Amino acid sequence: MSDTSKRGWLIPIGGAEERSTDALILRRFMELCGGRDARILVIPTASELAETGPNYVSLFEEMGARSRYIPIDEREDCFAEEIVSTLERASGIFLTGGNQLRLSTILGGTPVARSIRDRFAKGVHVAGTSAGAAIVCEHMIAGGPTGPTPTENGVTMAPGLGLTNKAIVDQHFRQRDRLGRLLTALSYNPFATGLGIDEDTAAFISPRGTLEVVGSGAITVVDPSGLQHSSMHDASDQDPISLIGLTLHILTAGDHFNLETRQAQAITLN
Amino acid sequence: MSDTSKRGWLIPIGGAEERSTDALILRRFMELCGGRDARILVIPTASELAETGPNYVSLFEEMGARSRYIPIDEREDCFAEEIVSTLERASGIFLTGGNQLRLSTILGGTPVARSIRDRFAKGVHVAGTSAGAAIVCEHMIAGGPTGPTPTENGVTMAPGLGLTNKAIVDQHFRQRDRLGRLLTALSYNPFATGLGIDEDTAAFISPRGTLEVVGSGAITVVDPSGLQHSSMHDASDQDPISLIGLTLHILTAGDHFNLETRQAQAITLN
Repeated sequence: MSDTSKRGWLIPIGGAEERSTDALILRRFMELCGGRDARILVIPTASELAETGPNYVSLFEEMGARSRYIPIDEREDCFAEEIVSTLERASGIFLTGGNQLRLSTILGGTPVARSIRDRFAKGVHVAGTSAGAAIVCEHMIAGGPTGPTPTENGVTMAPGLGLTNKAIVDQHFRQRDRLGRLLTALSYNPFATGLGIDEDTAAFISPRGTLEVVGSGAITVVDPSGLQHSSMHDASDQDPISLIGLTLHILTAGDHFNLETRQAQAITLN
Repeated sequence: MSDTSKRGWLIPIGGAEERSTDALILRRFMELCGGRDARILVIPTASELAETGPNYVSLFEEMGARSRYIPIDEREDCFAEEIVSTLERASGIFLTGGNQLRLSTILGGTPVARSIRDRFAKGVHVAGTSAGAAIVCEHMIAGGPTGPTPTENGVTMAPGLGLTNKAIVDQHFRQRDRLGRLLTALSYNPFATGLGIDEDTAAFISPRGTLEVVGSGAITVVDPSGLQHSSMHDASDQDPISLIGLTLHILTAGDHFNLETRQAQAITLN
């Protein structure tokens, strides 16, 4: 493994982050990227709305940072030298919401995807909201039915950007009832930790793998490392599956979870 | 990245490898593992047939190697010290066929999965046939419909053992008409190379990432690095998708493909 302590921070956000009053999550990301010296590059590719990129740029500029967005609508845009060199000057990268399969199918295997991985490894911070949160993982949840029960076909997975292999992220978590599809993803190979991130909530993951919750909702952490039994391999199409021995933490603002040791810690109020 | 030149060889086999006359693929694997000094550990977990493990042990012993199998039927078996220490004495690891989701759900996140990854990184060779071939990848094809056309929902993916991130393997390739699901998997994130491996055919992948075809069938190599357009992100449920600019190679015994440079080379007959 490379020296992970040189990485940037990784900040998956559960979508619908508050933007009109204190914009707590976006502001903290901007401070991390250098505050008034920050250069935040917005990648609005997941969205098909023309205003998504300009809107985030305005937000970050109102906070005092420098910001621009790069318009990437087709794979060929990802081979333009100008876009890659813009990426190389950023101190922070922000992936908007939309459709995560749009992101992975357009960026995957291109110089832009390689540059994001490279910049992240060298200390540039990467935040993503909604679809942008899903894709930061090596193993991305691309879709699936709603509901709390894991089922044999209960999730669609695809390769993501690969910025972490320690966590599988789902988003809009409480609002869209997605526990079942997160559990299904974990049951396929119970090695990663599942992070179900509510709207207006973010996991600020440090270079060493310690996560802090920021925002108004909760993060549902599912740790399958103690899983004793799973019926996944015997289940037929759409069957609910049994999973015995999962560890569950519900974490709110200020709480921590270490993705290496899998230890949770509640905030201590003095 | 770690120094990949110290890795073992990785040998995904397309299933139904010939075992009764010259057993070409299995013999070459056994020679690579040390010939008469080989210690080949068979992991029959994918299969639910009691004879699968003993049958492979007999085959390898008839060739002159030492061999044993480890019975792993439940996750708790993967925490037994004896099983992990047996793994640590092997010069080669062989994963049988069966159901790859059975393998990933039972081994995933346990000391056995970690030990296989660790041993492979230190030079132990890993071969897998059928389900055992699918799971060696970071991104594993777990299932999907048959047919040549990629469709929006045309594959089920899950995290595999993670011994390579350069290739996505499908097996029984020609025999079960699986081009469509391999293309669907690649379209989700066009960064890896697709390897569709026929029965009785193997990809012998060197530590530096050069693949040689061994056996009686072909390997269908799909390289998406030049992909210009994909309609995946606009497709609806079950829609066929368009993919423009894929590179395709059909390789047979003796041909090579370099997974790093993506160059194919046909065998030269002198």
